[in-house]
Amino acid sequence: MPLINDCVFCKIIKGEIPSSKVYEDDLVLAFLDIAPFNYGHTLIIPKDHQTSITTLDEIYANRMIAIAPKIGTTMMRVLGAEGFNLFLNNGTVAGQTVWHCHMHVLPRFTEDKVIISSEPLKYESKDQMAEIAQKAFDKLNK
Amino acid sequence: MPLINDCVFCKIIKGEIPSSKVYEDDLVLAFLDIAPFNYGHTLIIPKDHQTSITTLDEIYANRMIAIAPKIGTTMMRVLGAEGFNLFLNNGTVAGQTVWHCHMHVLPRFTEDKVIISSEPLKYESKDQMAEIAQKAFDKLNK
Repeated sequence: MPLINDCVFCKIIKGEIPSSKVYEDDLVLAFLDIAPFNYGHTLIIPKDHQTSITTLDEIYANRMIAIAPKIGTTMMRVLGAEGFNLFLNNGTVAGQTVWHCHMHVLPRFTEDKVIISSEPLKYESKDQMAEIAQKAFDKLNK
Repeated sequence: MPLINDCVFCKIIKGEIPSSKVYEDDLVLAFLDIAPFNYGHTLIIPKDHQTSITTLDEIYANRMIAIAPKIGTTMMRVLGAEGFNLFLNNGTVAGQTVWHCHMHVLPRFTEDKVIISSEPLKYESKDQMAEIAQKAFDKLNK
């Protein structure tokens, strides 16, 4: 599926909605998030309407993961950030709100207000942990 | 730099420290995080000691971004998760604590305790936003 009419990110790619472009090539577009966690917070989108990275062709995924750290280091230089997070939310429960796959590049600053955490959690036992790993391993490595 | 002696993730790759393996091939290893945000929280590491994704060869990065969504969907099946986050912390300020580049695959559940957020932030003006984007664009697209 290339681009569709009722997707805000497809409209940005087509130029029907303006964006603050950070990078563009034949496969991907990157632009500033309008609801940033920090200044320079950038979204990288494939020029192909896929709701999820699970269905995205590798040609797009490879370009996204190639350009993401370049955007991160560029924002460090432009804004004096000291590091960056890359993240991608897949599914409503994970915080995905636009149904066109996108990767976040988030410049980080000392004493910014970003939180990426959870309450402490432990496996009930080594056996429980080993069982989960083994079940996944069996599906992934066959 | 292939593997080094004083890196805990290199030791896991070499089998000197045990791990709950989820996936392994010629380029990457994935195993359960021992301090998980949620059950099934997995780390994907390249079999090459690079502290940062900014210096990681694309052959490793491509494999990491290819296997990450497969691990995410596998954990959805194994654990009944409803989605997943991928994230990568680059730099101390971003939460990186092990100096061997790694990507997190975090299965997500309704009413889990994971927080990925910030306080609301707005650009001071459209001009400020445009200026940041332009400075980054000029560095990235030359």
